[in-house]
Amino acid sequence: MKSKLLLALLTVAVAGSAAAQMKPEDAIKWRQSAYGAMGWSMNRIKTNVEGTYNKEEVVKAANVIQAIANSGMGALYLPGTDKGTGWEATRAKPEIWTEKEKLGKAAGAFNKEANEMAKVAAGGDAAAVKAQFGKLSETCKGCHDDFKAKK
Amino acid sequence: MKSKLLLALLTVAVAGSAAAQMKPEDAIKWRQSAYGAMGWSMNRIKTNVEGTYNKEEVVKAANVIQAIANSGMGALYLPGTDKGTGWEATRAKPEIWTEKEKLGKAAGAFNKEANEMAKVAAGGDAAAVKAQFGKLSETCKGCHDDFKAKK
Repeated sequence: MKSKLLLALLTVAVAGSAAAQMKPEDAIKWRQSAYGAMGWSMNRIKTNVEGTYNKEEVVKAANVIQAIANSGMGALYLPGTDKGTGWEATRAKPEIWTEKEKLGKAAGAFNKEANEMAKVAAGGDAAAVKAQFGKLSETCKGCHDDFKAKK
Repeated sequence: MKSKLLLALLTVAVAGSAAAQMKPEDAIKWRQSAYGAMGWSMNRIKTNVEGTYNKEEVVKAANVIQAIANSGMGALYLPGTDKGTGWEATRAKPEIWTEKEKLGKAAGAFNKEANEMAKVAAGGDAAAVKAQFGKLSETCKGCHDDFKAKK
């Protein structure tokens, strides 16, 4: 009887957490999607600073990056998702789960530059956007070098 | 001579547009990614309204949906991307390119409800969020029914 009650309580607790309702393959697919949406947005900003500059387009792209940067993607790195397939096999390196401090610093740097990117984009100065795009790209690259396996 | 000049001018015009710098397979992958990121965010809101409500988490998710809804994803539906493979074979129906008015209405409805979702999320009223989530979901479903092929 006691064990049944315990099981019921545990079930409620687990069902109440978002992570428990997420399939590992969904978590992997969703994080790949979030990076893909940011990849598109980075490409848009690059195209604008290298070609004809369109302020509104850059603002839209920067807002997507900012929203995803602030979304708390860490929630998608569930235990057990160091292996597995979403859209494709995950390229997350094991260091994501073992080097928390280093990862936190890399994520924080990205977050800071993504928020700054949105501010600079709203300002509409193409040269400033180009400079900030460079800084933001560096934080992407830094994290990929350490935490994402090469293809 | 005239035709050479015309060709040169055309080349400049095309090279200057973002679409020209986008590979069809990237466009398809990026739009699948954007929908994937919104799928994650919709799932987060659903989990919150059905379980323990966390205002900050819902705000983050709603902001991702809003930023993508306002990003101008139409740019990813280049001519020639009605077929092709991004993360997977596209499920875009031909009607996307032939029923512009209907598509515009569907996109406009989604946009309106996505912006409203972000406002309601910021308010933090779980019941209002649940109601708005229902409205937003309807606009997703409406568009999928008409413009996305079933698996």
